[in-house]
Amino acid sequence: MKAVRLHKFHTTPVVEEVPEPTIAGPLDVIVRIGGAGVCRTDLHIMEGQWDAAMGTPLPYILGHENAGWVEEVGPGVTNLAVGDTVILHPVTSCGLCRACRAGDDMHCDISEFPGLSRDGGMAGYLRTSARSCVKLDPKTQPKDVAALADAGITAYHAVRKAIPLLYPGTTAVVIGAGGLGHIGIQCLSALTATRIVVVDKNPDALKLAGQIGADVTVVADGKHVDAVKDLTGGAGADVVLDFVAEQGAEMDGWNMTRPAGSYFVIGYGGTVHIPTLDIISTERNVIGNIVGTYNDLAELMSLAQAGKVTLHTKTYPLDAAPDALADLDAGRVRGRAILVP
Amino acid sequence: MKAVRLHKFHTTPVVEEVPEPTIAGPLDVIVRIGGAGVCRTDLHIMEGQWDAAMGTPLPYILGHENAGWVEEVGPGVTNLAVGDTVILHPVTSCGLCRACRAGDDMHCDISEFPGLSRDGGMAGYLRTSARSCVKLDPKTQPKDVAALADAGITAYHAVRKAIPLLYPGTTAVVIGAGGLGHIGIQCLSALTATRIVVVDKNPDALKLAGQIGADVTVVADGKHVDAVKDLTGGAGADVVLDFVAEQGAEMDGWNMTRPAGSYFVIGYGGTVHIPTLDIISTERNVIGNIVGTYNDLAELMSLAQAGKVTLHTKTYPLDAAPDALADLDAGRVRGRAILVP
Amino acid sequence: MKAVRLHKFHTTPVVEEVPEPTIAGPLDVIVRIGGAGVCRTDLHIMEGQWDAAMGTPLPYILGHENAGWVEEVGPGVTNLAVGDTVILHPVTSCGLCRACRAGDDMHCDISEFPGLSRDGGMAGYLRTSARSCVKLDPKTQPKDVAALADAGITAYHAVRKAIPLLYPGTTAVVIGAGGLGHIGIQCLSALTATRIVVVDKNPDALKLAGQIGADVTVVADGKHVDAVKDLTGGAGADVVLDFVAEQGAEMDGWNMTRPAGSYFVIGYGGTVHIPTLDIISTERNVIGNIVGTYNDLAELMSLAQAGKVTLHTKTYPLDAAPDALADLDAGRVRGRAILVP
Amino acid sequence: MKAVRLHKFHTTPVVEEVPEPTIAGPLDVIVRIGGAGVCRTDLHIMEGQWDAAMGTPLPYILGHENAGWVEEVGPGVTNLAVGDTVILHPVTSCGLCRACRAGDDMHCDISEFPGLSRDGGMAGYLRTSARSCVKLDPKTQPKDVAALADAGITAYHAVRKAIPLLYPGTTAVVIGAGGLGHIGIQCLSALTATRIVVVDKNPDALKLAGQIGADVTVVADGKHVDAVKDLTGGAGADVVLDFVAEQGAEMDGWNMTRPAGSYFVIGYGGTVHIPTLDIISTERNVIGNIVGTYNDLAELMSLAQAGKVTLHTKTYPLDAAPDALADLDAGRVRGRAILVP
Repeated sequence: MKAVRLHKFHTTPVVEEVPEPTIAGPLDVIVRIGGAGVCRTDLHIMEGQWDAAMGTPLPYILGHENAGWVEEVGPGVTNLAVGDTVILHPVTSCGLCRACRAGDDMHCDISEFPGLSRDGGMAGYLRTSARSCVKLDPKTQPKDVAALADAGITAYHAVRKAIPLLYPGTTAVVIGAGGLGHIGIQCLSALTATRIVVVDKNPDALKLAGQIGADVTVVADGKHVDAVKDLTGGAGADVVLDFVAEQGAEMDGWNMTRPAGSYFVIGYGGTVHIPTLDIISTERNVIGNIVGTYNDLAELMSLAQAGKVTLHTKTYPLDAAPDALADLDAGRVRGRAILVP
Repeated sequence: MKAVRLHKFHTTPVVEEVPEPTIAGPLDVIVRIGGAGVCRTDLHIMEGQWDAAMGTPLPYILGHENAGWVEEVGPGVTNLAVGDTVILHPVTSCGLCRACRAGDDMHCDISEFPGLSRDGGMAGYLRTSARSCVKLDPKTQPKDVAALADAGITAYHAVRKAIPLLYPGTTAVVIGAGGLGHIGIQCLSALTATRIVVVDKNPDALKLAGQIGADVTVVADGKHVDAVKDLTGGAGADVVLDFVAEQGAEMDGWNMTRPAGSYFVIGYGGTVHIPTLDIISTERNVIGNIVGTYNDLAELMSLAQAGKVTLHTKTYPLDAAPDALADLDAGRVRGRAILVP
Repeated sequence: MKAVRLHKFHTTPVVEEVPEPTIAGPLDVIVRIGGAGVCRTDLHIMEGQWDAAMGTPLPYILGHENAGWVEEVGPGVTNLAVGDTVILHPVTSCGLCRACRAGDDMHCDISEFPGLSRDGGMAGYLRTSARSCVKLDPKTQPKDVAALADAGITAYHAVRKAIPLLYPGTTAVVIGAGGLGHIGIQCLSALTATRIVVVDKNPDALKLAGQIGADVTVVADGKHVDAVKDLTGGAGADVVLDFVAEQGAEMDGWNMTRPAGSYFVIGYGGTVHIPTLDIISTERNVIGNIVGTYNDLAELMSLAQAGKVTLHTKTYPLDAAPDALADLDAGRVRGRAILVP
Repeated sequence: MKAVRLHKFHTTPVVEEVPEPTIAGPLDVIVRIGGAGVCRTDLHIMEGQWDAAMGTPLPYILGHENAGWVEEVGPGVTNLAVGDTVILHPVTSCGLCRACRAGDDMHCDISEFPGLSRDGGMAGYLRTSARSCVKLDPKTQPKDVAALADAGITAYHAVRKAIPLLYPGTTAVVIGAGGLGHIGIQCLSALTATRIVVVDKNPDALKLAGQIGADVTVVADGKHVDAVKDLTGGAGADVVLDFVAEQGAEMDGWNMTRPAGSYFVIGYGGTVHIPTLDIISTERNVIGNIVGTYNDLAELMSLAQAGKVTLHTKTYPLDAAPDALADLDAGRVRGRAILVP
């Protein structure tokens, strides 16, 4: 099969022929890929940023945002049949540790992360686990939903955790209306009646935000912390969902969070510097967020199939993966780039 | 009456005669002080550290940790009678704003903080509100419980918030077994079955910790982060309750928190510096904590009256307030110094 | 002023002249009534059904669903000014007991219930407490929102408690699309992405339900329990909100609740008979609901002012109160009857 | 191997030779039984009470409360090694349905219940699933802990759900201080600071209750509802945990629950009859409880290994199973009867 393989950090991945994956364990599943999302994290992987954490042996196949059809199942698989349309939870979890038994798939003691820690889905086929497959309505086109497998689940997970804080009369700020934020806004709108304020540098992104659920949009022009304060009687927002969390957004996000409020970190790259006196005198929280649970993904697909979350995508054939990565790096992708094998 | 008044920052307060307070509003209550705790925050006030936040006009009476007997009540007070033994919630809240209506007294829109923002309880009498009085068993001696009014409620509030995280099999670290930490350990022991690990520089404090509920004690000798990691299979603690949060404890506390765990900030003085990548890749939280609710204080008094939380105190007559402050500053107080008018 | 007074059980109330109420306590507020809802509970009161529980001395003024303008305030009132437009929480709570301090106004130790336990709002003026007034946008017409003061808060409170159970992919059944249910459907739609199934005997009510948020409507024709089972793969609904709870609806509601699901009782009149084996073998819950908190009402008003909850009302002059009660009793009221003094 | 098999309802099971179980699926585990608890449910099974629900084909081996050592594992098992000491969660769950993915093992779509729906553990060996095994300290004797596998987990699960309701100052009533209740009392004492009131007909059971954590004991002599009311200022208990729920206990339990309180059903056999007016006017809840999750059992074992929950047991050789069942039926067992193969 064809696959997009990274041979060396700081180089462009190569589209080349590799052997197809095979069933190795009783719960293994081979999925024929119908769509593989291209994510900013792929650029970070290429730059070697995740090497320390993941220690992936090169070369390997990129692609951690995948959907397709079941091609083959291991002998212990009871919940899937060949031909099923599926979207894939990004990690393969053991199902047996404390975290898995509590539903916290992301905190599995021995998880793997295809596309980061082993071969991913920018290829004809991917080996995953029965535990990672969310079955979809057969009419669903994998390429239309693939981006929900990582960008979507991450935004959904953070929003879902924030729901109890977002009763009517509250204000939620979304920083960054890009790939993830754009889904987060739709989730907030579907799941709460909070006032949604979206902050972004890009006027086009703000325009889109207004169309998909933002009640107020604020240009990130250096005066945006004050703007959020003004919108909230000087107090700040009950919840800030920061999909950027770098280049200063991280302190802006903290500073526009009201007393007793919570600052949700979802993006990454920057560093927060917070005096403990500020934390205690206002009783504010900083909440970490990473991907989501299997059930989070299943719930998000339920939202998507009800038409409450929709994606803007641009498809590329698998051979054009280098172009898709270059377009993403250059800011030429609106919504999400999807490779279709 | 006699009162301990601060006339100028960076000077010692003076014990002097002042007029007794009088009822001004329908819910006002005059309390004859039976005990007033001496707190490290009093030292910080004297140094002017709270001036910016509180803007208190000098001179004013110190004392934010008070218990005594009801001396007089305003015309709208229905829940108290003259002679009742009471401990005082540290803030006077309005009872009418969103926060008050949700029980979050500390986040009242227009609260006052006697001893910080207006005259406090190091005096014969204090004016407070009916909303601040928790009625006690008449056999209770105010001087024995006064320290629960601020040190106690703060420790209790943080522990109570952590309970859902501390199921059997988890580990909670307490950093700092001093005035607050010493109560926090007892609350953890009364309210959870978590393993309690206490970290402190002071061997005497650790010895006491072992007597009141610590399962493991760790000397803060520079290797204590590793020690906590070793105790938890390399992962770190589910919850870290940091009663110090300065001089490096704040980063130690964060670093000994396990993935998906929560770092509770209760002390203050330092600054956390955390890359957002660390926050998201481990999905850890930083949780702010400030004093507590009226019901928190009532619950804590229930624990105290059942003998599940006890205090070590050293009493001084009101005239000796300067000595008590000096002893505290010099580290000569074991447990809590209490002024008895 | 004119008032609608009940002189004797099993008779029609009389519209007659009575003295205006006056300020008695420091937190009292006199409200000029702009709209008073007519509720099925008024019919029950007239029949003497609430006499045992409330022990109201006759004659007294009906009306527990009120909105209007502040006419006069007691000396301790700090949060309201004469002329403010307000909707009234149905109970006057003390603000000082454990329940009040936790925000559970309905469980106040010494609450009163104007219109049930003392003079209510079917009159020119009503005496209430500062704690009962939710301030509204001055453009709001009291007659347009009065029904939210009791019917609305009750529906909202139950829905709000159910939110954590109603993630995407779940099913919620609403039994009864009348005065309360009609608001409940809108709240479910605003606050969750659950599938909303509405069950009612009345085709007109179901038609309206479909227009305001129901995804599926089911005629209560004796086969409706099976119909809900069929819609849910045989399992039943995750949550059933029963706004009827009499004449068999109460067992239907329980029987259409899935294992691990919850049956919310909001209406009243019937009796549930449930073997404990059924309760434990399926781990289902029966959840009681009564009115709601002050903050519930404030949140609901936020939804209403955002246009997410709207009411269908029919107004009557105060003199026509007997007609309004007769119309309600005869099933001639669509939406809610409102008296306008 | 020897096994205790039921051949016909309303007869005594027979101890006889049967073939040993063998590995059938990749996650199967064969456990050599070290202890199998004898439970009142076994008597109910013999009487045919569970036949309708479980439809078990006779003859089959009894025993749903098991602990032992791993004898053999299937090819997909990664978390266990031959020789491991284990206690067994009573159901075998699929690990792949929504409920399993949320940690709610008891609500698995396709679970089996060894000892009820297929061959159980009153035998030399039992076939179970890797998902059912909780690994124990190798020093643990299976016969000492087996009763925690069902009686224990059930009591723990209910108590754990009640923790948020049981802050200091509350009252919890335990009805029935027998096999389950006796563990429930210890869990309450380990996990909360609530006041524990135990109600039982048997003075010996109450004496034991007092030794293991009860603050107050009440003889169930017909005046016990009033006694609980008297202990709680007339209001009733915040939480009632009913381990009996038959022969009138079920209405007593409901009637001694305070407004806004919750009545937890754990035992079974009776029927509750409750007017919906009683449910709504007091906003009380009826909470179902069934066994517990895998993590519940792991947490309980953590309590047991810390000495916070201990069991009173009486052992019998496997051949004496008919005697053990007869002793239980005749009320001659103190604590729990355990069969040791």
